[in-house]
Amino acid sequence: MQKSIAHLGPVGTYTETAALAYGKILQEKTGTEYILSPYPSIAQTLYSVAAKETDLAVVPVENSTEGSVTVTLDTIWQLNDLKIQQGLDLPISHRLLTRGKSLQGIKTVYSHPQALAQCQKWLEKNLPHARLIATNSTSEAIQHINQDPTGGAISSPRASQLYDVPVLATQINDYPDNCTRFWVVSLEKSGYGSYISLAFSFAKNVPGILVKPLQIFAERKINLSKIESRPTKRVLGEYLFFMDLEGDMRETTIKTGLQELSKLTKELKIFGNYDVLKIKS
Amino acid sequence: MQKSIAHLGPVGTYTETAALAYGKILQEKTGTEYILSPYPSIAQTLYSVAAKETDLAVVPVENSTEGSVTVTLDTIWQLNDLKIQQGLDLPISHRLLTRGKSLQGIKTVYSHPQALAQCQKWLEKNLPHARLIATNSTSEAIQHINQDPTGGAISSPRASQLYDVPVLATQINDYPDNCTRFWVVSLEKSGYGSYISLAFSFAKNVPGILVKPLQIFAERKINLSKIESRPTKRVLGEYLFFMDLEGDMRETTIKTGLQELSKLTKELKIFGNYDVLKIKS
Repeated sequence: MQKSIAHLGPVGTYTETAALAYGKILQEKTGTEYILSPYPSIAQTLYSVAAKETDLAVVPVENSTEGSVTVTLDTIWQLNDLKIQQGLDLPISHRLLTRGKSLQGIKTVYSHPQALAQCQKWLEKNLPHARLIATNSTSEAIQHINQDPTGGAISSPRASQLYDVPVLATQINDYPDNCTRFWVVSLEKSGYGSYISLAFSFAKNVPGILVKPLQIFAERKINLSKIESRPTKRVLGEYLFFMDLEGDMRETTIKTGLQELSKLTKELKIFGNYDVLKIKS
Repeated sequence: MQKSIAHLGPVGTYTETAALAYGKILQEKTGTEYILSPYPSIAQTLYSVAAKETDLAVVPVENSTEGSVTVTLDTIWQLNDLKIQQGLDLPISHRLLTRGKSLQGIKTVYSHPQALAQCQKWLEKNLPHARLIATNSTSEAIQHINQDPTGGAISSPRASQLYDVPVLATQINDYPDNCTRFWVVSLEKSGYGSYISLAFSFAKNVPGILVKPLQIFAERKINLSKIESRPTKRVLGEYLFFMDLEGDMRETTIKTGLQELSKLTKELKIFGNYDVLKIKS
């Protein structure tokens, strides 16, 4: 048996590293072979699973510096049937790759907008005059610098090796503990674990509407590890709320808490109950 | 007397439209002349006010489709002294500008990442094979297509006129009621109005920690029009919370509510109390 894992490509992205780590875990646990399927955008990796082109997708959902990857949240809300099977936390250590010889020679820096944002202070200090160009992925950035010694790409240590481009500066992220959480999603039922991710909408926005949902969990000593509002995209000021809870769906407090929550909300979607593994780059 | 207003440039951005509208309001109300100062990034417009290079900055803070402009929230939190003087809501109607003749000929589309995201479905439907390139602003996108009839830029109706580039498609945003809120900020004390924007951190993350702040406002029937978590940038899972309340700082319920809130939080920053004006493009 073989499973295909969709990820943001081309090879060498941090998401590919996470997908590879998950493929190995799957192989060790179940003997299942895996192949990786790179896609040009995060949304497309999720669509590929919904359309059954692939079995699983690995997508970034949150970074410690830049916060939520909103395209992941918005797309999973829209696509209804995707369920989270596993969380993966990957430490991120950005490199500046270039075929040039020195920082002084670099006029343009290419990378994914998240990576550019995560190295913002380093870029302002070390390359204040460089133009910053956003690309679809950290690996795609490397295509731009292959013929151009005045170009730099912010990418991963693995990409430097894969594409054989020298590293000019290491650990250039502004915060040393930079870490990204990924979700592994599929159309299969979610299992059980320590985290529950969900989102909900209300029929209308009235004062204090968020108090009751939070009370439900506080009364039951369920930790809310994250809350995030996202626009409904219709009117400014209308939101969906995304939450991560700590708990296992088999616990009574969780079961009754979610039942209470569903009474208050217009739409409630539970994306999964899963564990988070720390992986290495 | 003359005041300088910093905004994301070059001329023709939506932010410039908002800055122009505010300049006119200022002139009519107080007789103050104004000049506009374009900057290459949102962060730099805010830094320019903090460094007293300019008197005011106009910055986008939220879009009805894409949600918060996180660089604005993060920078205002870091810069402590900037206060919101006014909110401005601008309807957004994106155009596809090109020197080419037809959609079939367009191979690359340039724009600010927010604008690309707001037209995502239109692009997937009408230009599925076009490469999307992120630029620093919607106006900067036009510089890329001047010599290249295979390039398109997503930009404003005003930019089409200013740069004399034909419009190939109008109203290409995925949601018709696309609207962006801007904040006008300066180092002056904030006034009074119907909205209060603030942010806070907690000493530590314990179950139910957000319940009490929300209860404070619910008990006083103060509407919380927005809640948003942003990472502290140190450790995955540590957040600041940004909130918009409806109310005037001179009301007793608001005063006591904020006093109660300050007892619960580690740091509490009140960015301003202001009104929101609807403006036209």
